[in-house]
Amino acid sequence: MNLRYCEKNRVRGTTESKMTSLPISDVQAALAGLIGQANVYADPADKARYETGARYGDGKAALVVRPGSAAEVAAVVRYCVDTGTPLIAQGANTGLVAASTPDASGTQVVLSLERLRGEIAIDRANRTATVGAGVTLQELNDKLAEHGLCFPIDLGANPSLGGMIATNTGGSRLIRYGDVRHNLLGIEVVLADPPGQVLDLMSGLRKNNTGYDLKQFFVGVSGAGGIITRAVVQVHPLPRQTATALIVPTSQEAVLELLIALESEFGDFLTAYEGMSSSTVQSVIDHVPGVANPFAPEPIPDYCLLVELAATSSREVLGVDLQSALNDFLERQFDVLVANAVLDGGPDLWKIRHSISESIRHQGKLIAFDIAVPRSSMVDFQTTARRMLEADFPWLRLFDFGHWADGGTHFNIVWPHDATPAYDTDTVEKLRLAIYDLVVRQFGGSFSAEHGVGPYNERFYHRYASPEAQVLSGKIQQAIDPRHALGQVHFGPSPKP
Amino acid sequence: MNLRYCEKNRVRGTTESKMTSLPISDVQAALAGLIGQANVYADPADKARYETGARYGDGKAALVVRPGSAAEVAAVVRYCVDTGTPLIAQGANTGLVAASTPDASGTQVVLSLERLRGEIAIDRANRTATVGAGVTLQELNDKLAEHGLCFPIDLGANPSLGGMIATNTGGSRLIRYGDVRHNLLGIEVVLADPPGQVLDLMSGLRKNNTGYDLKQFFVGVSGAGGIITRAVVQVHPLPRQTATALIVPTSQEAVLELLIALESEFGDFLTAYEGMSSSTVQSVIDHVPGVANPFAPEPIPDYCLLVELAATSSREVLGVDLQSALNDFLERQFDVLVANAVLDGGPDLWKIRHSISESIRHQGKLIAFDIAVPRSSMVDFQTTARRMLEADFPWLRLFDFGHWADGGTHFNIVWPHDATPAYDTDTVEKLRLAIYDLVVRQFGGSFSAEHGVGPYNERFYHRYASPEAQVLSGKIQQAIDPRHALGQVHFGPSPKP
Repeated sequence: MNLRYCEKNRVRGTTESKMTSLPISDVQAALAGLIGQANVYADPADKARYETGARYGDGKAALVVRPGSAAEVAAVVRYCVDTGTPLIAQGANTGLVAASTPDASGTQVVLSLERLRGEIAIDRANRTATVGAGVTLQELNDKLAEHGLCFPIDLGANPSLGGMIATNTGGSRLIRYGDVRHNLLGIEVVLADPPGQVLDLMSGLRKNNTGYDLKQFFVGVSGAGGIITRAVVQVHPLPRQTATALIVPTSQEAVLELLIALESEFGDFLTAYEGMSSSTVQSVIDHVPGVANPFAPEPIPDYCLLVELAATSSREVLGVDLQSALNDFLERQFDVLVANAVLDGGPDLWKIRHSISESIRHQGKLIAFDIAVPRSSMVDFQTTARRMLEADFPWLRLFDFGHWADGGTHFNIVWPHDATPAYDTDTVEKLRLAIYDLVVRQFGGSFSAEHGVGPYNERFYHRYASPEAQVLSGKIQQAIDPRHALGQVHFGPSPKP
Repeated sequence: MNLRYCEKNRVRGTTESKMTSLPISDVQAALAGLIGQANVYADPADKARYETGARYGDGKAALVVRPGSAAEVAAVVRYCVDTGTPLIAQGANTGLVAASTPDASGTQVVLSLERLRGEIAIDRANRTATVGAGVTLQELNDKLAEHGLCFPIDLGANPSLGGMIATNTGGSRLIRYGDVRHNLLGIEVVLADPPGQVLDLMSGLRKNNTGYDLKQFFVGVSGAGGIITRAVVQVHPLPRQTATALIVPTSQEAVLELLIALESEFGDFLTAYEGMSSSTVQSVIDHVPGVANPFAPEPIPDYCLLVELAATSSREVLGVDLQSALNDFLERQFDVLVANAVLDGGPDLWKIRHSISESIRHQGKLIAFDIAVPRSSMVDFQTTARRMLEADFPWLRLFDFGHWADGGTHFNIVWPHDATPAYDTDTVEKLRLAIYDLVVRQFGGSFSAEHGVGPYNERFYHRYASPEAQVLSGKIQQAIDPRHALGQVHFGPSPKP
């Protein structure tokens, strides 16, 4: 097999393309010389787990390489750029837009970050952690917990820190702690241009306004232009108290009113405000062992909200029990904004919320939408979208859940296995455009709230980003990486011929 | 007088320069045609207040123009770029690095944002405000207060929102609320390239990961590449309770220990942790009417810390009085980390802190340093810097105060009027390099924590930003604004010949 740039990774713009065609064995030998034979996988069995994404992406890698340091990443990048060998960075491969997996061509080299670990260095006084890009969120949090700290990005997966930065993950507790971008103080990144240049931006500073904040250009762009090898993140004190409730609002309008009231009265503590429709809760109860209707003997309500408060202060220091304070608040809102509530459910309530994705798989074929609209448009969007589904796609079922506090919604639609008509991709594409058009064009929202942009959804980027934004994005991408050597997405105006 | 590009604003890089030389009267007439005669100032008396910066910058403007809409800004930008007329954007002109004032050439046109106002639109459910770039922080906060909200960037000045974004202002309460970047959801910006292109990024979204986050390219770069005309910012519930104390730590090491303890036990509430040395407090007492030694009859301590907690929750909702909780905490720390404390001083304690800059002016000629180091290096930096000053510049006096929680320090040095030797600029430059070298090279800090980079301190950018960072910054600036038409600072490798 020979390696060559596939069309997708051809140089765009004004820089001259450098086309190479090296025997795979030469590439393998050269990379083994740079990072060691043991860290270059050519065997199909070894490569397999790097080739398929968590939701989309199912290709073939020419090789998988596992460099163990920024210097080794730099050597690999330099070699691959110089020889025109396409390279794809991969963290824990938990992403949902196929940004970290190879295409079907079998010509791409996957660069796994998993050996970029080193010691997790915790600076207690600075309240920061210095972390290798291959360290996972769980590993970081296990280590931080020993110091009473946490990195509070709450996700269903266990990604690597490098992947989290490349995706700018958000999660359920964004309203309290922000996304990865908000907690990122520094990165080390190996640039595509000059090839293999290590850019050290490993500041542990919270205040530093000295020109372009260069790390921003590598956050949330799915590996475009550089491979992140290390990071400094701000970490937070572990909460000492939490309070939870599963709340039935008195009306659809009460959902936002209750959020405003909670932020106004408990704004320091509100960490999650997650809405779930009845079909979603029912799906969990039906398919996940050990989960019962929390409202029994009442039926499952049309809509309910999982509220979580968290306080750094203990009950002893503050003199108040957070759950009692929340209960009192809900009591006062009874029959006003709150129709019913299950109090203090803690892990049991979160289990419902966290089991949604698992339960949906039993319902049929999932068509997932990771969208966001301004909070003030959440009700209108949901009403409009439901009506559109009922009118135009009546055989589909909706299992949505929403991060109301940050405007994000996982608008999960299922095509039941036994539905008529049978599943077909043309209809799915029509559905995608119908939902995204509504989100972006009617409600000023986002077609990718927290999953980022990868080969899977690049076409929607070109549909929805404004022409002016695409032009500027293309100029910037071209400036950072003129050969388009790193990152699978082209952010300039549509590359379609 | 004729207008032409001054050397400073000459085109750099590969794009062809377009040199023009138009009579000023032609430019004036053309701009009056675009935005109205009344909004083009040519009279020296009218122009005067736009020509001198708050600390540095004292030049002459060819004209001052005051467009009233993004379309008018676009027209002015288009005309000026097309004719090679240098243009400088100016907000409330409160910046401290001369980024918004013209140079001495008298050839530059100042574009004031002050008429970019419109209605402040508050979206209560989205907890956001849409604001014209010319609206001031105070105006925004007055309006927000009517809704129980605030934009919690706490500063000594009253800048415009556009200027705040261009500077990425931080302030005293950054540890709780973040800087402007952390609270910025969207901008509208008039681009330098294509000249006058309006880029609408006015999203009110908290989650939106769809490629490059383009607004980041216009935050904190002092107007490089574009003029911000509107913004959507996240706002916060107004605190219902605050607690303050002026604390004397038991030792220098206790300062960070106390911060860690406060974050661990009151992390949800800590809004400020401001250190002041005895000379600084004494200066305020000596020179600001109505301020007495808060520790009397005890003498002023060597060092003290202004602590502020703020809670969204009222005492009624939370069942706790925040000041009592703080007092109890300090009581427990007595003789451990806390040697003495003035409790519940509220506005009186903040008056000391806010009067520092005013009081220092009486002491002599101010040489201000707006620096930051990692929090864990604050003690070492301060010790080392003080020793260096005593050894090498013994006639200078230090009136420093520090935002310990975010690592920022206003390391204010005064050259007393009656000192020997007499003030001279060569020595000041030596002092600047000595302090900045220490901050950046020895302690990994920043030479401009929250004031940004302008013509005043551009030379330090070229000294301290790494060569790799300057190369990448230059590529990005070149991509966004190939003619270098907007912004006075060149972020590429040093422009010196």
